[in-house]
Amino acid sequence: MPAPTVHMASHVDLLIIGAGPAGLMLAAWASQYNIHTRIIDEKSARVQTGQADGLHSRTLEIFDSFGLAETFLKDAFHVNEICSWNPDPQNPKNVIRTQRARSQPSNLSRYPQVSLNQGLTEQILLDYLATKGKVSVERNLTPETLHIDEHLCDDNEAYPSVLTLRRLADNERAKNIRPDSYQSAETETVRAKYVVGCDGAHSWLRQQLQIPLEGEHTNKHFGVMDIIPLTDFPDIRESCVIQSNCGSVMTIPREGRFIGQRVAPRFSHCDRIFLAGDAVHTHSPTMGQGMNVSMQDAYNLGWKLGSVLTGMSSRSILASYNAERRPIAQALIKLDTKMSNFYSDGPSEESQDYQTFRDSFSWFLSGVSVSYGPNMLVTSAGREGAATNGHLANGDASHAEHASGQHLSSNEANASTASNSYPVSDPTLAKEIRVGQRMPSEKIVCQAEANPVLLSNLLPSNGKWRVLVFAGDLAAASQRQAVQNLGHALAKTCQQYAGPGQGLHSTIEVLTIHAGSRDDVTMLDLHNVYHPWDDALGWDYWKVYSDDADTLGGRCAPAYAQYGVDAERGCLVIVRPDQHVSYIGPLEAPEAPARFFAHVLVSRTR
Amino acid sequence: MPAPTVHMASHVDLLIIGAGPAGLMLAAWASQYNIHTRIIDEKSARVQTGQADGLHSRTLEIFDSFGLAETFLKDAFHVNEICSWNPDPQNPKNVIRTQRARSQPSNLSRYPQVSLNQGLTEQILLDYLATKGKVSVERNLTPETLHIDEHLCDDNEAYPSVLTLRRLADNERAKNIRPDSYQSAETETVRAKYVVGCDGAHSWLRQQLQIPLEGEHTNKHFGVMDIIPLTDFPDIRESCVIQSNCGSVMTIPREGRFIGQRVAPRFSHCDRIFLAGDAVHTHSPTMGQGMNVSMQDAYNLGWKLGSVLTGMSSRSILASYNAERRPIAQALIKLDTKMSNFYSDGPSEESQDYQTFRDSFSWFLSGVSVSYGPNMLVTSAGREGAATNGHLANGDASHAEHASGQHLSSNEANASTASNSYPVSDPTLAKEIRVGQRMPSEKIVCQAEANPVLLSNLLPSNGKWRVLVFAGDLAAASQRQAVQNLGHALAKTCQQYAGPGQGLHSTIEVLTIHAGSRDDVTMLDLHNVYHPWDDALGWDYWKVYSDDADTLGGRCAPAYAQYGVDAERGCLVIVRPDQHVSYIGPLEAPEAPARFFAHVLVSRTR
Repeated sequence: MPAPTVHMASHVDLLIIGAGPAGLMLAAWASQYNIHTRIIDEKSARVQTGQADGLHSRTLEIFDSFGLAETFLKDAFHVNEICSWNPDPQNPKNVIRTQRARSQPSNLSRYPQVSLNQGLTEQILLDYLATKGKVSVERNLTPETLHIDEHLCDDNEAYPSVLTLRRLADNERAKNIRPDSYQSAETETVRAKYVVGCDGAHSWLRQQLQIPLEGEHTNKHFGVMDIIPLTDFPDIRESCVIQSNCGSVMTIPREGRFIGQRVAPRFSHCDRIFLAGDAVHTHSPTMGQGMNVSMQDAYNLGWKLGSVLTGMSSRSILASYNAERRPIAQALIKLDTKMSNFYSDGPSEESQDYQTFRDSFSWFLSGVSVSYGPNMLVTSAGREGAATNGHLANGDASHAEHASGQHLSSNEANASTASNSYPVSDPTLAKEIRVGQRMPSEKIVCQAEANPVLLSNLLPSNGKWRVLVFAGDLAAASQRQAVQNLGHALAKTCQQYAGPGQGLHSTIEVLTIHAGSRDDVTMLDLHNVYHPWDDALGWDYWKVYSDDADTLGGRCAPAYAQYGVDAERGCLVIVRPDQHVSYIGPLEAPEAPARFFAHVLVSRTR
Repeated sequence: MPAPTVHMASHVDLLIIGAGPAGLMLAAWASQYNIHTRIIDEKSARVQTGQADGLHSRTLEIFDSFGLAETFLKDAFHVNEICSWNPDPQNPKNVIRTQRARSQPSNLSRYPQVSLNQGLTEQILLDYLATKGKVSVERNLTPETLHIDEHLCDDNEAYPSVLTLRRLADNERAKNIRPDSYQSAETETVRAKYVVGCDGAHSWLRQQLQIPLEGEHTNKHFGVMDIIPLTDFPDIRESCVIQSNCGSVMTIPREGRFIGQRVAPRFSHCDRIFLAGDAVHTHSPTMGQGMNVSMQDAYNLGWKLGSVLTGMSSRSILASYNAERRPIAQALIKLDTKMSNFYSDGPSEESQDYQTFRDSFSWFLSGVSVSYGPNMLVTSAGREGAATNGHLANGDASHAEHASGQHLSSNEANASTASNSYPVSDPTLAKEIRVGQRMPSEKIVCQAEANPVLLSNLLPSNGKWRVLVFAGDLAAASQRQAVQNLGHALAKTCQQYAGPGQGLHSTIEVLTIHAGSRDDVTMLDLHNVYHPWDDALGWDYWKVYSDDADTLGGRCAPAYAQYGVDAERGCLVIVRPDQHVSYIGPLEAPEAPARFFAHVLVSRTR
């Protein structure tokens, strides 16, 4: 006999279904914003060890943006090499080590590839949520029904999704017990502004939306064993690919998993309901990508939802989630096929040298070269017209045609220098910074404190956009004048989008990196926008930096050289809240940031 | 009317009086050993901010050996530069910045100079003690009487010190209330094997021992102000020395303190009672040394007490505390006089160029070049006789005469190559490793995992001695043979001093760093002592390392070059539990470690 029915009703800004790595990453983002978030999971506890464990460089960079990288690095196994073993030509019954391949080039990222089991990864994220105190996982809660009022989807204030949630007893799991046998009859109707399904390969939410997984089951078979080896195999503490005449073995210090290689045709519905992680793409375990791509999906989505829900941005930015992340999943599946073939079939013409083979895709696997756009959030490459530097507009049409949905057409982007036209980037101003990719991190020096810091330390995941002013050599009067002119324009833009009663940098933060000697610059001589005043805290001494190799001592190349930026003239770079680069332009186009943000942010002033 | 008298009695291995930085550092060491430790403090809570805040490189290296450096670095202010301001020759009423001096050379240590207030420093150590769970501070407890049974002092098992402790009510403090007015009459008699006074400049314990502070009160006067400046002074976020015609000001981001410059004539009594920190040396605040030297005193003492109390070492090693630390305090006082004069009187002939002046003592101030011995724990320099390398014994008498009490005479050290003679070091084998100084930390690569690590990560403060085997190039058969011969001898020595039922490395840990390619070495081909077997855990894969620049990629110089060790022939280095170097010798003297440890450790085998 069922228990008496208890029914509740509630409203929520963001409902996350599933508290695996993707769901927890999204909750980490949500903790940065003043929004009402719930995250539910049908399981009564997190996984103990889990099905995945590879963590790649970009994922660690993302953890670092939440202040968590050191915690992961401390506990993780560092995958530095992958040893290749093949039949001995002298004695084909034996295998010999044919190569030690480094897992990734040393200049790829400040972080290595590591492996940490999913349970610990989830626990670190859970601890982080507890520290932030805004979002906590509600367990034993499963969604049962979904209704979408599609005509409400474009109304900012509406709650278009209506879900029924059922509370499970500790000993029942939705998948294993028939719904009419549930012991608990406690249900809840939740109306949500936004819903994200991070509910795995068998995603309930994807099924409700009738989105299939497209692709093929493979005829490759992987068997996975967890063993504690007692062996004299010399490379047992490294990842190995052992190909013998009797079959192939891959050793990794952690467990793996195998299902089909498939990807969903769309990751979202009406830009109100989103799917992330295994819910929309599945592949083999050979690349250790499972958790990474899932969390990177969520990382791409989180700040966009936070910005829309807090009124900082309009709903139009949400379309970029599907546009940006689906091509990544497709590319991943394609690469996975190649890798699976290599692991199961052995070297081919193309993969004869394992190091070369591996290097050719480590930039992609690590996540650091993942590129988005052009779209509303990422400008296209080209040269702006006469208004800025005397060149005619010269949009790079082939770049603008990148498969990413919401981009403005090349014509639209370059049509005019009118005050509200979308700017185009000049990639020649910063040859080693790529529009659409994550901003690389170099060491710079705090002007006021002489403290060397990594640029990445200044870009935490707190929802802010950043304008990086590479101010060049401020000893030159013309350069000082350009930076002051830019300061006037930036102050106006920062003020326009700052929340009411909030500081000048509350939505757009301006960070300056000059290339001259620190002795040539007095911070307080620069425009206030570069070191904003606060009545309670005084000047902000932590916004102006120098590329001062003498102070750092012993470095091989200063940051300007690493970024490919001219040390006399500098440039301006706009960086998204997820560290991806939106725009690169000259300092002498002080109105460009205003034109960019007009398409992305909502004005807070009348 | 006094409360009814409550009286208790107890025994303790180690009683620490005072829970400031020195006392807490000692308690951190004590937490590494299976001994009964108490730490008492008359105050009811730790200081809120505290009187000191400078933390120098060696202190951070010590924190790192307890796994705490990152915690300190995260919260601390980094003192990177000290700006020198002097009267403008054109307009002597004004001051101008004459120099930005870096606070220390970049190659000094992997850690910078930082500043963190004493309250937070103590809290980090208190949190560490809580994590270890062995020692916790007992507050509102003050010592009243001390009696020493001096005839018991040489008996290992005796408790020669008898103290009465009185429990204070929360609102009374020993110094301010007359003893006959104490509200609480709860007292306790404690019998202690060892007592350490970390009870500050007015040390009760020092007074009981009738040890004076010798030295002079200075006629220099320092006034210290805590202010929150609203100023356009451009260097306000850096440490500055401002000398004007109206007087001098030193700015530091934290408070300072000033008392006399004095040092006690001895730091210990019968090697049963010890004094550390302000209890035995006081000086000016100009060098930010207060907490550092205090904690370094305790760090020097802690492992010695732990080793004696657990039966690992004989009591004779304790004399080295006074011998090693008192010369440091004396040198500090001497330098302090010079610095105080500079700060109050302005530049002199000697200190005209502030950078040069500062560089000349930063090695000492940072603590990294502090050198001990020769004494029982640190061999003297010289060349061992014909038995090892064909040279005649040639003790460096001037070095051996270093003022540090307990050393063996040069004659004694070099008298013979008999099996129990104390070995002498050959400093030419490792030109950048200094016998008596702390072992420098360079990057090396784990043979089994290809993981780059700092050598310092392998030397945590857990009470173990380390034998570092720089194995040279193992591709050469003669070198392989030398390393295997050494392995036989080391195995015997490790076994002799390992605790009963403990692992081979439980007292002496052997760490190998070879200079060849990792492909040329198979770890399991080396003697078991280099990767000891454990029935529960299997082989130890984390004891053999390579100086493999290719794997690390992009490094300028491999570890062997940094250490000045010949990459073909290698050498052997013995490192104390506090990371100071005891001995440097050739691999071809496999019996030298046994001869060294015979004087330092107690054999556990019959």
